[in-house]
Amino acid sequence: MEALAKPYLMFLGDAKDQLAAKTADGIAYWRPEWCVGQFRLPGCVADVGLEDITIEEAQARGAKTMVLGVVNSGGFMPESWTASLTEALARGMDLASGMHARLEDFPEVAAAAAEHGRRLVNVRHSEQSFATGKGQRRSGKRLLTVGTDCSCGKKYTALALEKAMRALGLNADFRATGQTGVLIAERGVAIDAVIADFISGAAEWLTPENDADHWDVVEGQGSLFHPAFSGVTLGLLHGAQADALVLCHEPTRTHVRALPHFPMPDVGDAIAAYNASGRLTNPDCRVVGISVNTEALAEDAARRYLDDLSSSHGMPATDSLRFGVETLVDALP
Amino acid sequence: MEALAKPYLMFLGDAKDQLAAKTADGIAYWRPEWCVGQFRLPGCVADVGLEDITIEEAQARGAKTMVLGVVNSGGFMPESWTASLTEALARGMDLASGMHARLEDFPEVAAAAAEHGRRLVNVRHSEQSFATGKGQRRSGKRLLTVGTDCSCGKKYTALALEKAMRALGLNADFRATGQTGVLIAERGVAIDAVIADFISGAAEWLTPENDADHWDVVEGQGSLFHPAFSGVTLGLLHGAQADALVLCHEPTRTHVRALPHFPMPDVGDAIAAYNASGRLTNPDCRVVGISVNTEALAEDAARRYLDDLSSSHGMPATDSLRFGVETLVDALP
Repeated sequence: MEALAKPYLMFLGDAKDQLAAKTADGIAYWRPEWCVGQFRLPGCVADVGLEDITIEEAQARGAKTMVLGVVNSGGFMPESWTASLTEALARGMDLASGMHARLEDFPEVAAAAAEHGRRLVNVRHSEQSFATGKGQRRSGKRLLTVGTDCSCGKKYTALALEKAMRALGLNADFRATGQTGVLIAERGVAIDAVIADFISGAAEWLTPENDADHWDVVEGQGSLFHPAFSGVTLGLLHGAQADALVLCHEPTRTHVRALPHFPMPDVGDAIAAYNASGRLTNPDCRVVGISVNTEALAEDAARRYLDDLSSSHGMPATDSLRFGVETLVDALP
Repeated sequence: MEALAKPYLMFLGDAKDQLAAKTADGIAYWRPEWCVGQFRLPGCVADVGLEDITIEEAQARGAKTMVLGVVNSGGFMPESWTASLTEALARGMDLASGMHARLEDFPEVAAAAAEHGRRLVNVRHSEQSFATGKGQRRSGKRLLTVGTDCSCGKKYTALALEKAMRALGLNADFRATGQTGVLIAERGVAIDAVIADFISGAAEWLTPENDADHWDVVEGQGSLFHPAFSGVTLGLLHGAQADALVLCHEPTRTHVRALPHFPMPDVGDAIAAYNASGRLTNPDCRVVGISVNTEALAEDAARRYLDDLSSSHGMPATDSLRFGVETLVDALP
């Protein structure tokens, strides 16, 4: 990805729930020093904890890029955003978007960018061209976060693991596979935006041959149990050739993201399915630990839940943000 | 897909093996009345059984479209083809291609098409935009062909099933999911060229709600056991919501297509994996029969192999082209 000019104004649009603003949330959490504030339209129910400011105030604070930190399933852009986008361009900011739709495909946005000489950056669209997957074993080690569902902590867990592993002196690199991860890491590939034939090939490109003691800590995507995105998940799993998987889970959900008719899978079934699928390209691939988003539980309840999970499945279980990832790092092969 | 002008000249390029010409093979087999001949470059080892003619002879026979009936993994176009493509355009033919690369991205080809007023048709690129998959159950029945590997009979089996089912008075439609199928059916979507996030959504679009007794006979893609294309396979399986699967197999292969380091899966393991994966979006999804490409076996050996396979797995096993698909149709739920 071409680097964006900093600092950023986070545009939350009219996000209908907090998860819709997960791109803004991720950047505000992992890179707060890059953000001057958040801008929200009427009806927006998301809040990423930055100060609410206008586009004019962002300009006064020196914002150089307005990041569209909100996505809707499928990634289309509502008409109601146009005026804010053109204002940001007029006030000297570039625009960066993680949506499937390209910013330049919206005539008013393209015209305003041309008029004011600003850049439109489509983070989801890699200029990189990929080969099809080869499945050839390569040196170096790889960890992939996988999930019982979408949006249940795969990116945060991978970032927390990279941070902890580096603090321990391990040779580890976070590998971003989604628009938010790419914005945080300033490199990577939004794998859900790759042509279907090249999912595994893109994952292989992202995690090339490396030193024997090097760990790629790969951000997972989707879930084998989510009927919309399972193909992306499997292609990434096979391309990443993971030595270790960390299963991410949100215990209070009753159904998978956005599909009330699809129940969440059982954690044991999920471990078995990921182990079985992962073995195709790496016979040693296995889930080594569980990372749970326990935000909805009190601390006592969270610890009890994690202890039970750990005993039931014979592996460490933690909330990576609340209780740290040390037990997961210890479980790595 | 926009309909192509007929008849066709089949361009085989310098295909390195017969499978590389599978698009031409499929059209020549299922729609021979649309073809005036085949054109091959030096070094071409494929032969689809049409008369070898020059581009000039094809023009004399009234060819209206030259179909690039050859693909290489990844779908790129060799430079050595350019002269033939521009000659066909100069001789009044449109060009149709099933490759990932777009014909108009090759400057000499684009210039010749403009000069001679001919069309460039990229079969793999649908103008259709898709939603993400919803997993909502819909009326009508769906059969999907799946495989132990790529290129092992999924399209031919589906076309043979459509033909036989229609002959029995059943309400059945072949649903094309690859460039060859789209060229044969003159509709459908090349699902391996869809953006990864929309694989399942495209499969849902292709097999919409229908009469309760209607069968979509869906062409499968790739294989859960091929590390390059497993994501496409799983997304299609989940989107198609199949009631019945027919497993396609080629018994003499020792490794999956193009990857000598990847052994073929066991047929029983493949049945179990497809049944387990398919249940996510349709609890009744199961493999109901096996279709084997027995071309490499003598008739006696082929019949013995199929009998053994049928007893081992408790379901009909046939070679759809050699021995017919009646036993498979009888096994449908």
